[in-house]
Amino acid sequence: MERLDVPLGRPRGERADAARNRLLLLDAAREMLAEVGAEKVTMDGLAERAGLGKGTVFRRFGTRAGIFHALLDEDERLFQERVLSGPPPLGPGAGPVERLVAYGRSRIEWLLERHALARAALDRAQPVPAGAATLSQLHIRVLLRQADLGLDDVDGLALQLTGALEGPVLLYLSLPEQAEAARDIERLAGSWQFLVERVCRA
Amino acid sequence: MERLDVPLGRPRGERADAARNRLLLLDAAREMLAEVGAEKVTMDGLAERAGLGKGTVFRRFGTRAGIFHALLDEDERLFQERVLSGPPPLGPGAGPVERLVAYGRSRIEWLLERHALARAALDRAQPVPAGAATLSQLHIRVLLRQADLGLDDVDGLALQLTGALEGPVLLYLSLPEQAEAARDIERLAGSWQFLVERVCRA
Repeated sequence: MERLDVPLGRPRGERADAARNRLLLLDAAREMLAEVGAEKVTMDGLAERAGLGKGTVFRRFGTRAGIFHALLDEDERLFQERVLSGPPPLGPGAGPVERLVAYGRSRIEWLLERHALARAALDRAQPVPAGAATLSQLHIRVLLRQADLGLDDVDGLALQLTGALEGPVLLYLSLPEQAEAARDIERLAGSWQFLVERVCRA
Repeated sequence: MERLDVPLGRPRGERADAARNRLLLLDAAREMLAEVGAEKVTMDGLAERAGLGKGTVFRRFGTRAGIFHALLDEDERLFQERVLSGPPPLGPGAGPVERLVAYGRSRIEWLLERHALARAALDRAQPVPAGAATLSQLHIRVLLRQADLGLDDVDGLALQLTGALEGPVLLYLSLPEQAEAARDIERLAGSWQFLVERVCRA
């Protein structure tokens, strides 16, 4: 199986004390998120809860959105593990079309379950959350190749299906009032299945 | 035909002097864009070129991105006119699948031809350019209904196909170095055609 080499999680070569601080901060952030909600998580509050200096928090996360981005990255790594080595049809062992359908449904659920976190992590300096798009894009490309559609080049289609999957959810996350339809997991998962099965059938 | 009621262009009830200033500013911005490129268009330079006060420019556009957004809105209105009343297959008079294919190709070309402008107009406070997504979303929904796919509800699919169409281009606009594939008009237009024809075939 093709390796999904997605840059996520722990930076390589991180020093031991930096790694410890990062874990302390992420734990504190997750606790605060559960207790007071994303809107009330501040850099100051986080530093206090983790027992670290405010400078450490800023060096680590840069911005408030950076905190949520780091939490989402952790969850993303777990999600990626389910895709790479979990049970089928999300994990290996089912056919490519079945896996594409399962991936879409799981991804939509995963993102919408984390909507407060994902919304808070939308970095305003970076319109498209790159990590998320990358995992979907690589995985969809791998499965499209396996599905053997008779196309010489599936890269454009992989990008477009990534947009089809992530776009509505991003639209909902960024403009909830204009994207009622994107909130409905069953509707999106159902039409994703329709889309994928039609695109891939011989 | 269903009306695409997309809010674009001239605000209703705009006063005559405000309308005149807006046109002066848009003309000046378009000249500067052609002469010096998007990166060198400033609020100050624009005020000077249009012979207006800087305060007027700020009141009208809010931010630098707002200038480019307004220019893109004007172009968008012209594009919308071609879709609503231009010659087929982009305009009315062809079948829905043929129109979907033509819409995608024209939209990809339209966006990539304006990539400097569209990139400059990406408002960092608003991850998804709402106007652009709205036109595509409404038009795709109308055409999917006409294509009679046997789905009770095409809204989710319309959102997903909008994501498929706009997503790769937005990815390229916001992260050009990570989105080589999205720059290639022929590749994207070709895989859009494959996608639409597969989704819509009986």
